[in-house]
Amino acid sequence: MSSIKESLLTEVAETLPSAGNKVTVVGIGQVGMACAFSILAQGVSNELCLVDCMADKLTGEMMDLQHGSNFLKSPKITSGTDYAITAGSRLCIVTAGARQRTGESRLDLVQRNTDILKGIIPKLVEYSPDTIILMVSNPVDIMTYVAWKLSGLPKNRVIGSGTNLDSSRFRFLMSQRLGVAPTSCHGWIIGEHGDTSVPVWSGVNIAGVRLREINPTVGTSEDPEKWNELHKQVVNSAYEVIKLKGYTSWAIGLSCSALASAILKNTNNVHAVSTSVLGEHGIDKDVFLSVPCVLNANGVTHVVKQLLTETEIAQLQKSANLMHEVQTGLKF
Amino acid sequence: MSSIKESLLTEVAETLPSAGNKVTVVGIGQVGMACAFSILAQGVSNELCLVDCMADKLTGEMMDLQHGSNFLKSPKITSGTDYAITAGSRLCIVTAGARQRTGESRLDLVQRNTDILKGIIPKLVEYSPDTIILMVSNPVDIMTYVAWKLSGLPKNRVIGSGTNLDSSRFRFLMSQRLGVAPTSCHGWIIGEHGDTSVPVWSGVNIAGVRLREINPTVGTSEDPEKWNELHKQVVNSAYEVIKLKGYTSWAIGLSCSALASAILKNTNNVHAVSTSVLGEHGIDKDVFLSVPCVLNANGVTHVVKQLLTETEIAQLQKSANLMHEVQTGLKF
Amino acid sequence: MSSIKESLLTEVAETLPSAGNKVTVVGIGQVGMACAFSILAQGVSNELCLVDCMADKLTGEMMDLQHGSNFLKSPKITSGTDYAITAGSRLCIVTAGARQRTGESRLDLVQRNTDILKGIIPKLVEYSPDTIILMVSNPVDIMTYVAWKLSGLPKNRVIGSGTNLDSSRFRFLMSQRLGVAPTSCHGWIIGEHGDTSVPVWSGVNIAGVRLREINPTVGTSEDPEKWNELHKQVVNSAYEVIKLKGYTSWAIGLSCSALASAILKNTNNVHAVSTSVLGEHGIDKDVFLSVPCVLNANGVTHVVKQLLTETEIAQLQKSANLMHEVQTGLKF
Amino acid sequence: MSSIKESLLTEVAETLPSAGNKVTVVGIGQVGMACAFSILAQGVSNELCLVDCMADKLTGEMMDLQHGSNFLKSPKITSGTDYAITAGSRLCIVTAGARQRTGESRLDLVQRNTDILKGIIPKLVEYSPDTIILMVSNPVDIMTYVAWKLSGLPKNRVIGSGTNLDSSRFRFLMSQRLGVAPTSCHGWIIGEHGDTSVPVWSGVNIAGVRLREINPTVGTSEDPEKWNELHKQVVNSAYEVIKLKGYTSWAIGLSCSALASAILKNTNNVHAVSTSVLGEHGIDKDVFLSVPCVLNANGVTHVVKQLLTETEIAQLQKSANLMHEVQTGLKF
Repeated sequence: MSSIKESLLTEVAETLPSAGNKVTVVGIGQVGMACAFSILAQGVSNELCLVDCMADKLTGEMMDLQHGSNFLKSPKITSGTDYAITAGSRLCIVTAGARQRTGESRLDLVQRNTDILKGIIPKLVEYSPDTIILMVSNPVDIMTYVAWKLSGLPKNRVIGSGTNLDSSRFRFLMSQRLGVAPTSCHGWIIGEHGDTSVPVWSGVNIAGVRLREINPTVGTSEDPEKWNELHKQVVNSAYEVIKLKGYTSWAIGLSCSALASAILKNTNNVHAVSTSVLGEHGIDKDVFLSVPCVLNANGVTHVVKQLLTETEIAQLQKSANLMHEVQTGLKF
Repeated sequence: MSSIKESLLTEVAETLPSAGNKVTVVGIGQVGMACAFSILAQGVSNELCLVDCMADKLTGEMMDLQHGSNFLKSPKITSGTDYAITAGSRLCIVTAGARQRTGESRLDLVQRNTDILKGIIPKLVEYSPDTIILMVSNPVDIMTYVAWKLSGLPKNRVIGSGTNLDSSRFRFLMSQRLGVAPTSCHGWIIGEHGDTSVPVWSGVNIAGVRLREINPTVGTSEDPEKWNELHKQVVNSAYEVIKLKGYTSWAIGLSCSALASAILKNTNNVHAVSTSVLGEHGIDKDVFLSVPCVLNANGVTHVVKQLLTETEIAQLQKSANLMHEVQTGLKF
Repeated sequence: MSSIKESLLTEVAETLPSAGNKVTVVGIGQVGMACAFSILAQGVSNELCLVDCMADKLTGEMMDLQHGSNFLKSPKITSGTDYAITAGSRLCIVTAGARQRTGESRLDLVQRNTDILKGIIPKLVEYSPDTIILMVSNPVDIMTYVAWKLSGLPKNRVIGSGTNLDSSRFRFLMSQRLGVAPTSCHGWIIGEHGDTSVPVWSGVNIAGVRLREINPTVGTSEDPEKWNELHKQVVNSAYEVIKLKGYTSWAIGLSCSALASAILKNTNNVHAVSTSVLGEHGIDKDVFLSVPCVLNANGVTHVVKQLLTETEIAQLQKSANLMHEVQTGLKF
Repeated sequence: MSSIKESLLTEVAETLPSAGNKVTVVGIGQVGMACAFSILAQGVSNELCLVDCMADKLTGEMMDLQHGSNFLKSPKITSGTDYAITAGSRLCIVTAGARQRTGESRLDLVQRNTDILKGIIPKLVEYSPDTIILMVSNPVDIMTYVAWKLSGLPKNRVIGSGTNLDSSRFRFLMSQRLGVAPTSCHGWIIGEHGDTSVPVWSGVNIAGVRLREINPTVGTSEDPEKWNELHKQVVNSAYEVIKLKGYTSWAIGLSCSALASAILKNTNNVHAVSTSVLGEHGIDKDVFLSVPCVLNANGVTHVVKQLLTETEIAQLQKSANLMHEVQTGLKF
């Protein structure tokens, strides 16, 4: 006797496992799940794969997402503790790693997370040799370098989420001061994602009008309006949100969803992401830091050469040297 | 000396606080935040207000969402422990209440959550007399009745998220069996959200072809393909996800976002939501249960009169009587 | 001296020509442009290629779309009279052909349009051997057969837009009668796109409740509410819109955008599209007619076997025989 | 005997005519329909009203849109030759007026279109006293002034689509030169929409890096890369597209959809739109010209004070004087 499926449907051709937009998220903590959910809810991709070593939680998160399929665009959601499930991913977002604790600096996490990456990155590349890797684990700049080293991929295909989030936080704070939509507030935070990030005050503008043209002291200690408080707030944001709610999730999820969109849709949008900066701004170390980059289906294809002040360049170089020092001590 | 804002912008008119699509979410646990985030990420509304009594976590969640503003449509996100902040809401989604514990039945939560609602519902209506209330707190059917009693609003404006989620879970499971998109798999779970929900097998169809026309035993114990397992899986879903990950969040968030969309956009879409069923299917008690409803800017304006079997009607009436018994014992 | 581009951007890797979602639209009349614009505006794809023999109009349409790029998701829009520009398309939508004139039957257009297709289909397949072809040119069922013959592609990869539009028109009219959203009104028009299309009254339902269960005469001449008028209106729709505005465009554009979405996103949604029906419903001719199909990245992978009445089957077979007769007379 | 509707649905409350996002489009030529369709397809609003004096074409366009309802978000689409149908609109987009002919300057159209507006604007305000009016009819700057005079509305609520489109064209051309997404290419065209528009070269930037910082001659005749060609192409765009395809439609449709989104969603985004510039940049005439404006639910609430060169200011003032001269001759 034939099954309902056989009675209902005449098969005329096989279905294909993928439409070519598979995104794998490694690590299903609050950050990983916020990334995964943002990508599904914003329609950036409808092929999602989750990987983690906690099998129970992994199945639970997969089921919870699947139960919402009727409200999404027919997503194909898979999960597994074995990396074979990730095969054919166009983008792998790595959020695995110990979460930053209240008061902990991002740099303290390095070796711990490097060891974790050794069990992840080679397997991702084995199953998806053409993938782009987006690192989110902190400290993200060094972790992106580590992932690049472990991956064997060209530099343009290993990217850190970097200061895309810091820049978004800056634009939100700017929007609050001026009453202008964040997407119409332009400002770039570059360098290290975290305590030593660099706000490029010269570029901060509304409709092409630089705040520095109105008040040349903007961003300096002489500024009566204390715009430099905005950067301090950006730096403190992660610490403050972690203190208040225990972790950060939504904003980093949306940030990664935006980066995923630029990559999957091949848009050439400019985002501040962590990339190899050897040779940029006089940096002579092989480190990854955030600078504005053209992002598309080939990853980072171009770096925007901002015109920085000597102080800004010095800050970047200092970060680079610090990164390099830490990297030199790493055991691969 | 004029500020940068004054130098940059000529004010020609005041800005307005709202564009008329304000959604308040009460309760910022995993469910509340999944609702809030789904609504923002799917572009259902860009005016969101969060209310909870935990001031720190509340500020943390608000900040985390705000930091992602640059990747959304210029959302206006507010929060507060004082209900004055909710003024002018078009929709209030209430997720407050103790979370269902592993193994706990939804009914056990009733009086505990009723007492909580006494501090919430009257204040919501005070500040937004024209609002629609969407109840999510469990046991959702009784809580919707309680909210209606406490609100003084007409019945059509107090709705429970009900079996919209159960139906979505059913369609996902159906899609897995048939290889057809969940949105093309049609099936309705009605009645109580939870253990005694009722699958309306007669209506289960693909492109208008009822599975029962192919195999009349579908949904019964005689069915060799055991389609009734799907309903059992739906009933167990919440328990299983809670066991695996500790709570449910994504699917209920997306479910509420879909309901919010129907309400805010005045779409007249049919969803299975908890509404007053006095007079439907021979029910003679003033209780709320899920049935397919036409949902729009006035809440539930029509109930679809499904043609149920005697067994299905008996199941509904049993649920109704059970609800009523519990309700009778409630202290308002 | 270096250019601004060189001074501004450090190139670190090449950009890729495509992200794998290229859609070609052949024929830039009102229908073709409505398809192209719907696909861009709804974000179904951001890679669009236009082909036509009218070079001037073609450039004008391309420029006009490109000028709106800032309001879309960084689309890549190309055009050309030479089919080399279509290389690597995942989907080719063919709208070329003489437009149906006021009062003209779709069948009158056949040989005229077959000759046009000879200059199109082989070239599309030459440059995109893995493409799916979506035929829109009328009479669409025969044109789909012709395209399949000319293409050498497997049957599942040559699809006609068919009665997806007729079904949408039916659901809209149904929604007007019932006050329920079109997407919650379920009904299927199958068979020939046009005068002899077949409404499957047995499947018409709201939330699984068949109108025929409420009133068994629905769709027959005995029905006091004359629901069969809805099908007559559907059949007359194209004629009436053409009479009123000169052509149809928006609805067919949106219909094709929906089909493109199912194909590019691999959704497995069920749509009524024109496909090979040899062996379905007792049809013994090699013709293409619309039936509900599972649509995904491999085109039509399954046909839904509706349970039709003898009259409905007879109507389908009559259409099939008519199609076959016309096809037999065609000169390839 | 009860109807199917009565048997199927229990009415529990009345439906509401509007969810508060009604958009009326006056004039259903290619521009008006591209506006209407963009707004529906991009989900900016699902309440659309079309008005025109050509009753047949009007019904045809309405029906064609309605037939696509199943592929949109349950839109409510109405139309009529009587302005009563527009009641309660939150935004009225006026595209009525004779279309610009090949070679015709925008200014030639003025009195002709003023007389047309006399029959439109007062009626729109009569039925929707709280509406915002978005003028698209050319010459748009003068027509916006005329509409403001005829409307009796405050200046902030009468807006011209202005150089939002010119700026979009500029960004597209810039993106082609640099290989960067249009939405990451920043540049503003202000002043008169058309031949005498003013490109503000000082503000043209990528990630805050001004092209003028790299090459100070950008935009001048000394520039070896001839970036000023971009502005010439922008100015010629409308003429060229009209020459090639007979009219412009898609880009202006998308431009207006973006403006409608900022207004309906209260976003505070900055767009270059035509607004009263009396007092800006030393302009002492009561004219409307495009400058970057903060756009939201109250219309234009702020004007961005760009820092212009003397030459740019002189160009604006020249345009203003020219506008004023034409306005003085108008018969109201």
